[in-house]
Amino acid sequence: MLQSKLFTKTVKDAPKDEVAKNASLLIRAGFIDKTMAGVYTYLPLGLRVLKNIEKIIRDEVNKAGGVEILMPSMQPKENWEKTGRWETMDDLYKISDSSGRESALGATHEEVVVPLVKKFVSSYKDLPLYVYQIQNKFRMELRAKSGILRGREFMMKDLYSFHKDEEDLKKYYEVMKQVYKNIFERAGIGNETHLTFASGGSFSKYSHEFQTITPAGEDTIYVCNDCGVAINDEIINEQKECPKCGKANFKTEKAIEVGNIFELKTKFTEAFDLKYKDEGGMDMPVLMGCYGIGLGRLMGTIVEIYNDDRGIIWPESVAPFDVHLILLNESLRSTSGEIYESLQKAGVEVLYDERMGKSVGEKFADSDLMGIPYRIVVSEKSMEKGGVEFKKRSEEESSIIKKEDILNYVKKVQ
Amino acid sequence: MLQSKLFTKTVKDAPKDEVAKNASLLIRAGFIDKTMAGVYTYLPLGLRVLKNIEKIIRDEVNKAGGVEILMPSMQPKENWEKTGRWETMDDLYKISDSSGRESALGATHEEVVVPLVKKFVSSYKDLPLYVYQIQNKFRMELRAKSGILRGREFMMKDLYSFHKDEEDLKKYYEVMKQVYKNIFERAGIGNETHLTFASGGSFSKYSHEFQTITPAGEDTIYVCNDCGVAINDEIINEQKECPKCGKANFKTEKAIEVGNIFELKTKFTEAFDLKYKDEGGMDMPVLMGCYGIGLGRLMGTIVEIYNDDRGIIWPESVAPFDVHLILLNESLRSTSGEIYESLQKAGVEVLYDERMGKSVGEKFADSDLMGIPYRIVVSEKSMEKGGVEFKKRSEEESSIIKKEDILNYVKKVQ
Repeated sequence: MLQSKLFTKTVKDAPKDEVAKNASLLIRAGFIDKTMAGVYTYLPLGLRVLKNIEKIIRDEVNKAGGVEILMPSMQPKENWEKTGRWETMDDLYKISDSSGRESALGATHEEVVVPLVKKFVSSYKDLPLYVYQIQNKFRMELRAKSGILRGREFMMKDLYSFHKDEEDLKKYYEVMKQVYKNIFERAGIGNETHLTFASGGSFSKYSHEFQTITPAGEDTIYVCNDCGVAINDEIINEQKECPKCGKANFKTEKAIEVGNIFELKTKFTEAFDLKYKDEGGMDMPVLMGCYGIGLGRLMGTIVEIYNDDRGIIWPESVAPFDVHLILLNESLRSTSGEIYESLQKAGVEVLYDERMGKSVGEKFADSDLMGIPYRIVVSEKSMEKGGVEFKKRSEEESSIIKKEDILNYVKKVQ
Repeated sequence: MLQSKLFTKTVKDAPKDEVAKNASLLIRAGFIDKTMAGVYTYLPLGLRVLKNIEKIIRDEVNKAGGVEILMPSMQPKENWEKTGRWETMDDLYKISDSSGRESALGATHEEVVVPLVKKFVSSYKDLPLYVYQIQNKFRMELRAKSGILRGREFMMKDLYSFHKDEEDLKKYYEVMKQVYKNIFERAGIGNETHLTFASGGSFSKYSHEFQTITPAGEDTIYVCNDCGVAINDEIINEQKECPKCGKANFKTEKAIEVGNIFELKTKFTEAFDLKYKDEGGMDMPVLMGCYGIGLGRLMGTIVEIYNDDRGIIWPESVAPFDVHLILLNESLRSTSGEIYESLQKAGVEVLYDERMGKSVGEKFADSDLMGIPYRIVVSEKSMEKGGVEFKKRSEEESSIIKKEDILNYVKKVQ
């Protein structure tokens, strides 16, 4: 893509009320715009990252048998009354039309998915079933101040699994643990992300969170120095030993919850009387699990981890482009254009800074702020040295490489 | 995809309150589910169609220079007050949080896109600019009864163009006419869809709609018998002659508005004081156009046009799958499985009905209801005749073809 066609520009200062580093960097680099507190627009660069994240999640979830659907944001009040959450969920937005009829604005989708599944599941033969969507959620955050880590409106992957018994639920729960591990690994935050034991509520001993260590985290977790799993704030007082290895040797860390998985068991299926007939024709309750990942939160977490004082440093798997190609001297426009064409032809995604009237300093500062993994500079100086200047955003050293060798240096991630 | 993994099933009856044929067929065939009046869930089959439509639209809009972004549904009240629409737009949903702060739930996005563009456009060099998104809209329909043709919550492609003068706006407006023509052509409703002159409001003589003729249409249009353009209800009384060819020979038709394009000129840019500096450094108003297509409405319109008394007949370009492969006799499961594999390997999208315990009649009825373009039946009877039974959904005649020839018969649409 030509940078001149991007329409957005880097911005000198983030809005004054924007205290979160993720949003501040993403706004300055032209990835998002703040529409209002807790509500953001994804600009072309930001949308590309969001779609890359979406692709990773969809790919891993599909591999685990997930079937994709798309549920609405507007939800019937009576469903929320059935589960009791119309009154008890504090952050639920309620909307009413001019005839006074009320509905809920989806903060989560159990109230839609369970009645939906009830229409199609009646026998043990219909189970298990794994249904997911990638869809907006709305939650009333009165003081939204964490950028895209915690918005009032945010994109989420939510998967709901349905099972005939606890054994089957537990089996899939373990599958999803691995799916989440793979997703965070592929998104570049595998090393910083810890499986974290959390309260299971009234139905299970534990639920699990995936917590990514960073000073920007709102949560505190306690990481086992021996085996690497963690426990969260809710259960640290009753849980003296590591639930995995039994040792009691924890390190306290700030972290962001990038995903959670939860055994809901019959909490929602009972509310809607979702049952199935077993092999003997007996009515049995359907058991349920739910599994969430906020896409914006994941994107914000990546930014919180991968940045330096010049800007963002995207992992290749989610970067908006693979290569930032920068033309410095008008005399080399056709050489530079040829490189652009040949990279695109090879399937490499290139942002091509062909803008005129910008200084070298401005172009490099923009490039560092945006954080595209590979930078290729075409200049008279580089040509005198025998080629183009090649530099990784994550490294300080650059090198001169021959035009013909560029493709070998840009190892394309799949 | 294995039909047994689809989780949804065909449904004998649509809900009693569902009077629209599009929703009734789509519900019975397992493409959508009615969550509440005017609000639907897209099931796996329906989501595939929606994504195919999305792909066609994105492809054509990108070719015309569109830059994709994603704006939020929650929108600042003060922006809607600036344009005066907070009070005047009857179908706008308003939400308030527990502190009493109000916001709008996006019925359209001028109130977000204009302030956004203002942050990045200041000079004639920044224009023209074409920004679009594919995003949910919410509109307060008190009596939603047209299925997915007119929902309370619906997916829309909305593009906003920004120009330095009227000439440039008009030029792009003509480009978009062609883009829309291409989209409806590719979606299979090109023949039934007419460019329709509508009222231009206070700023232009005309705006334009794309109206698709079908008895299910809520609108009445008057199609010129000579040149094929149409005029709508708003202007039929003042417009005695065809605005294109000047003849006065119209045919009255029922139609669905599948798209509209509109010269907004300075209506919204003035409200937000969006100006640019021209070549001489003078402040000039930015001119604007807007261009919408409802994805669900387009899908519903296709269904209204392509159906018979047995079910839906999808055009190949938007069909959820290319081929419906149906196994009738358990003894041929491995033969049938091989065909499934080989088609998938060749990039053909196949729904494979490998279900046991269903009668021939049930399988054929399901297949006709779902409307996948090509049906391939593997049965002992077909094998005795020398191969598999091949039939187009749109034709009555079937033929026996050799296993090796299947790929030649399934001409893959790109």
